[in-house]
Amino acid sequence: MAQQVNPPRGMRDFLPAEKARREAILAVIRRSYRAHGFDEIETPVVEDSERLHAGLGGDNEKLAYAVMRRGLTAEDLREAAAPLDLADLGLRFDLTVPLARFVATHRAQLPAVFRAIQIAPVWRAERPQKGRYRQFVQCDIDIVGEAGPLAEIELLTATIATVRALGIADATVRINDRRILVAMLERFGFAEAERDGVLVTVDKLDKIGAEGVAAELRERGVTPAAVDALAAFLARPAAPAADFGRAAVRAALPEGLDSPAIASLAGIGEAVNAAAGGQVVVYDPWLVRGMGYYTGAIFEVVHPSLGFSFGGGGRYDGMIGRFLGEDVPAAGFSLGFERLVDLVDPPSLDAQRTVAIVHAPDADPAAVVAVRDRLIAEGRRVRLLTRPKRLAAALDALAADGVREWIAVDAGADPASLTPRSLA
Amino acid sequence: MAQQVNPPRGMRDFLPAEKARREAILAVIRRSYRAHGFDEIETPVVEDSERLHAGLGGDNEKLAYAVMRRGLTAEDLREAAAPLDLADLGLRFDLTVPLARFVATHRAQLPAVFRAIQIAPVWRAERPQKGRYRQFVQCDIDIVGEAGPLAEIELLTATIATVRALGIADATVRINDRRILVAMLERFGFAEAERDGVLVTVDKLDKIGAEGVAAELRERGVTPAAVDALAAFLARPAAPAADFGRAAVRAALPEGLDSPAIASLAGIGEAVNAAAGGQVVVYDPWLVRGMGYYTGAIFEVVHPSLGFSFGGGGRYDGMIGRFLGEDVPAAGFSLGFERLVDLVDPPSLDAQRTVAIVHAPDADPAAVVAVRDRLIAEGRRVRLLTRPKRLAAALDALAADGVREWIAVDAGADPASLTPRSLA
Repeated sequence: MAQQVNPPRGMRDFLPAEKARREAILAVIRRSYRAHGFDEIETPVVEDSERLHAGLGGDNEKLAYAVMRRGLTAEDLREAAAPLDLADLGLRFDLTVPLARFVATHRAQLPAVFRAIQIAPVWRAERPQKGRYRQFVQCDIDIVGEAGPLAEIELLTATIATVRALGIADATVRINDRRILVAMLERFGFAEAERDGVLVTVDKLDKIGAEGVAAELRERGVTPAAVDALAAFLARPAAPAADFGRAAVRAALPEGLDSPAIASLAGIGEAVNAAAGGQVVVYDPWLVRGMGYYTGAIFEVVHPSLGFSFGGGGRYDGMIGRFLGEDVPAAGFSLGFERLVDLVDPPSLDAQRTVAIVHAPDADPAAVVAVRDRLIAEGRRVRLLTRPKRLAAALDALAADGVREWIAVDAGADPASLTPRSLA
Repeated sequence: MAQQVNPPRGMRDFLPAEKARREAILAVIRRSYRAHGFDEIETPVVEDSERLHAGLGGDNEKLAYAVMRRGLTAEDLREAAAPLDLADLGLRFDLTVPLARFVATHRAQLPAVFRAIQIAPVWRAERPQKGRYRQFVQCDIDIVGEAGPLAEIELLTATIATVRALGIADATVRINDRRILVAMLERFGFAEAERDGVLVTVDKLDKIGAEGVAAELRERGVTPAAVDALAAFLARPAAPAADFGRAAVRAALPEGLDSPAIASLAGIGEAVNAAAGGQVVVYDPWLVRGMGYYTGAIFEVVHPSLGFSFGGGGRYDGMIGRFLGEDVPAAGFSLGFERLVDLVDPPSLDAQRTVAIVHAPDADPAAVVAVRDRLIAEGRRVRLLTRPKRLAAALDALAADGVREWIAVDAGADPASLTPRSLA
């Protein structure tokens, strides 16, 4: 017996049933986003190392797989100060860095407002664990060049329509705005230098609760009066749920807090809920989102059966223009396909009904092919099977797979006389 | 002005029109092969380095991109004897090595005869040149576990049907059998050790002619009498074209040459031509195919407008079982998608007719979204456009793109009252 042969650690193969299921779900996502006016693009799976490590990827940069330069000599190895000196390319760890590079490369050929779909794998050298893979698919839409709230409204309504097209009826979207978060932290009295660290802690509110947040901040020694103000605010009774709107947003914030982002966020929530026909978008004043590059609205899509979000995004005006050397407003939404795929009942995978052709080992190949081609011409899909010793068990297995008809092709059979028989 | 920003050397981005075109063509290929009873699988883009460099890839192994181990130290770099010591993974250079690994991993879950589709990119660090890319897509079908000629007949008929489904009516398939080639070389008197080198030269017959082949062989010093016999045979008048069959194959070979492969090859050719309704398959006694792993029938699909083949394959019984540790018969056919894509008139890319929504910069986003969602509900695809200063030019550009209708959404417009106008 040969030893066990596996795909690379943390990565997966997809056998026919799972591959068909994944492609069917991706086709729904692609079709929905396309209908909404987004256009699919593709970039190479690798980018130049210097771009991957330009500071746009946050902690993910550390997880990038590095591709070695070709033609390295023993001397090159000895003289390298660090491993990355030997690499000129890397596998992308997200689809945002490649989009920024794509926009810089093709700006002249793109419309002033460009709506991109990217459905593609990314790679991260994370410690393998259940549900985390080192190669996984992301489904991103991005709107580049639109500074107004139409971008956020389009992203959210297109995503909600897409999630619904997948048969997920009860997803909700939590939204917030980075500028409101910053205004709150200022109001409580946190110093500007403390802000990012405080947000990291606040991001754990769901997990560790208000008291846990306050305790962690005290331990880290940030301005004590600010921690007290935050703790008091978190301890106040929750505002009654209300329709999304400027008043509802204000009610969830410290009294008198003002920010131009409030009207913008309320307008986005109102428009999306009106289009969605219900309270699909909810305001979450403590939604943070991990990545530091967000500059305005941020969002996350959640499902009651999951303890985590299965997608998110926001406005990140500073980033897309980095390689271009000019400011370009942009906002995006990324669906985490590997989280989504388990929530979805597969759409009907084979509209063409499958017929199994069970041929004798010594059947005339030309007869097998003739039967097959007649069925394909009738719009059927075929599955071919050499007749096994235990035919009944094989037919049961076909029926269990959803195949409903079969044809036996024996040695010497006249293909014209053979018609499908029921497997029931 | 920022400096030019490009994708990695030798690799390409695909903008929306080209991406849509490629995906539409791939969908035709996928649908056709699926109808013929093949099932799509997927493997990670990287494989463990030791498998990529196990000798199954021929010269392509040298072109593999190596992925560095994570967490390398300065000491690791100093102590490495060769670059590959620092790599644990590599980007696949073909889809055959991954298939061999996949079969070894999942053998117990696969049917006894497994018909696989792989449509996926591969990577080779070749010197970039016109029409050669470092990331390119291959479309492979393979039949694993079938030792008889049904495998070759299925591969060829499915491929011919697929090429026809793409609208390429005049492709032909040249076929040969490695065993017949070997029998010929033996007959002419080449020593066994000379055989591979002679085949490399014979493979250039199309380019350098019979005299070129003889000259190159003489220069390389192989058995002179054998070269004379080969040259005399190549100089004889060509046999008249005949229907594919045992007699026709024999007529193209040295008199009295016998090989069990003759009957097998003739049977494959006859069956495929019968199924295809014409002389699509032709016998080419000098077809060699580069890769050394072929063990039986070999094929190549050619098109009159191209100077080269756009796909090929054959039987390679020794290879798929290598990682499994047992012999597994296998045959495959690979379409070179990047060569094919230029031969194909794109199928109609958007069955849903597109409507352009041209909105004023200050139009109410909710009105834009309402108009959009009504059109999508009617089965249309939308394209959104902020109204530019030169509206007429923008409308002309839309019309040139094939968009036939548009709707203007101005500030204060009532979305319910807006209907598409013709762009003509």
